Amino acid sequence: MTKAEGGKRINLSATDRIAVVAGSGRLPVNVADSLAEAGHKPFIVLIDGETDPGTSLWSYAGERLAIEQFASLVPLLKRHDITHCVLAGGISRRPVWRAIRPSIALLRVLPRALAALARGDDGLLRILVTTIEDNGIKVVGAHQVVPELLAVAGSMGALAPQQSDWADLRAGQEAARTIGALDIGQAAVAIGGRAIALEGIEGTDLLLERVRELRDNGRIAGRKRGVLVKCAKPDQELRADLPTIGPATVDAAHAAGLAGIGIEAGRSLVLDYGEVVERADRLGLFVIGLSGEGNER
Amino acid sequence: MTKAEGGKRINLSATDRIAVVAGSGRLPVNVADSLAEAGHKPFIVLIDGETDPGTSLWSYAGERLAIEQFASLVPLLKRHDITHCVLAGGISRRPVWRAIRPSIALLRVLPRALAALARGDDGLLRILVTTIEDNGIKVVGAHQVVPELLAVAGSMGALAPQQSDWADLRAGQEAARTIGALDIGQAAVAIGGRAIALEGIEGTDLLLERVRELRDNGRIAGRKRGVLVKCAKPDQELRADLPTIGPATVDAAHAAGLAGIGIEAGRSLVLDYGEVVERADRLGLFVIGLSGEGNER
Repeated sequence: MTKAEGGKRINLSATDRIAVVAGSGRLPVNVADSLAEAGHKPFIVLIDGETDPGTSLWSYAGERLAIEQFASLVPLLKRHDITHCVLAGGISRRPVWRAIRPSIALLRVLPRALAALARGDDGLLRILVTTIEDNGIKVVGAHQVVPELLAVAGSMGALAPQQSDWADLRAGQEAARTIGALDIGQAAVAIGGRAIALEGIEGTDLLLERVRELRDNGRIAGRKRGVLVKCAKPDQELRADLPTIGPATVDAAHAAGLAGIGIEAGRSLVLDYGEVVERADRLGLFVIGLSGEGNER
Repeated sequence: MTKAEGGKRINLSATDRIAVVAGSGRLPVNVADSLAEAGHKPFIVLIDGETDPGTSLWSYAGERLAIEQFASLVPLLKRHDITHCVLAGGISRRPVWRAIRPSIALLRVLPRALAALARGDDGLLRILVTTIEDNGIKVVGAHQVVPELLAVAGSMGALAPQQSDWADLRAGQEAARTIGALDIGQAAVAIGGRAIALEGIEGTDLLLERVRELRDNGRIAGRKRGVLVKCAKPDQELRADLPTIGPATVDAAHAAGLAGIGIEAGRSLVLDYGEVVERADRLGLFVIGLSGEGNER
């Protein structure tokens, strides 16, 4: 295992107050719990319809926010004297514009938000980061709070790719990078040496479900194995939306009949690492961190 | 409407015998009926599980062939004194290797077929074309038999794209070309100025169904309109697998909430043209042929 890039933990002082804007999935849970274990008291912004119910996130101090109230995020953070902020987890819904109530806060952020929307989602995240930082709150990446989440290069479990899997890993990496450069998605599935399914806004779960259905329907008949590859976009905003896998990704890849998972080392996150490795070993999948050059062999 | 490229009709003499290898969809029906109307007697190779039942294809002279018997195609064509051959329609199944019975014909074609499979599907089509032509049978494109199927530049129905649709058309065209260059797919859906879903081996029908589901689930909330764009691959084998739309594509694009369809002029096919235009007009969609440069305005 090689050293991951950018995995430096930030130092929080006793007077710092850190908020976790919690989308869906395990990442915000990992981040909040890790902060609590380190003696910090995270403040959680619970996003309506996104933050998973039944997790520890609901046991911390926090406040709920609807997607449509995005303009109220900065005032909310200021009201609670937040000094640092982590954007973590998925936001799959988009604002329903007719549900947005006009406010002074909205008028302040709207011109930027509209310009960002015109440029695509990655632009929107950047604007959110900039807007928060303009108000004196530091935005930090999940990997700066929990650096052990960052994927490292090399095999993570007991299994390594077979020789034939490398053609899939290379084809998947090429496809994932290409669509990432177009700001469309971060993931691709490659089977038989070629990419056969690409991630759009539907996300990795639905991408893998699609591959499972194609396999069940005989559309990939005669082709065993295959891989899921996730890569960061070339100009990825590292403080938000890093490519992520977790135990559920291993389950879904297995259900899709894939032989393994490749993720970009140093610019991707592995949630619940121990569970990912345990499950991959049990199901017979490899999980490998790919270096930037994609020429591991 | 401008003149489409490559739309020259081939001349068949009285002694020529033309076969249509009929995959799924309306294209082989259009080709066979057009040949019959011109006084030729098409011979149909009906592919098990692919050729649509209940069409006129079953009323012509023909023979059935399983996917796994692909090596028997050339002997079959030779047996019926075929001089010209059109490969038309979709083949979504892949051979189940264990169902292939060894034969002399298979041994002849296998080394090439395996090499082609290693290079991806586009390579496989090329090999099929080469193998047929090596046996003295001329492979012609559907558009050379029915040149009026070729998409022309400009709006095909009553509606034209609105100004905001052009950002979608450009984003969809960029995405479709990019994945085409990687030999992954030919189609993309763009909404709000960015590509949000990309075609893999699942095909355009399932791509549009996915967009419909994403729309229904609120994953594209607040974003109206959007377009489907289909483009040929940069090094497209023009005699097989040209991007194609038909009335069902218009229905599916409408169900997905899209405002229109863009296809590459001169290198795409429009099946049942009159019905496409009638249905697009009735449902309020535009259908436009895009010139190669994508700079119609």
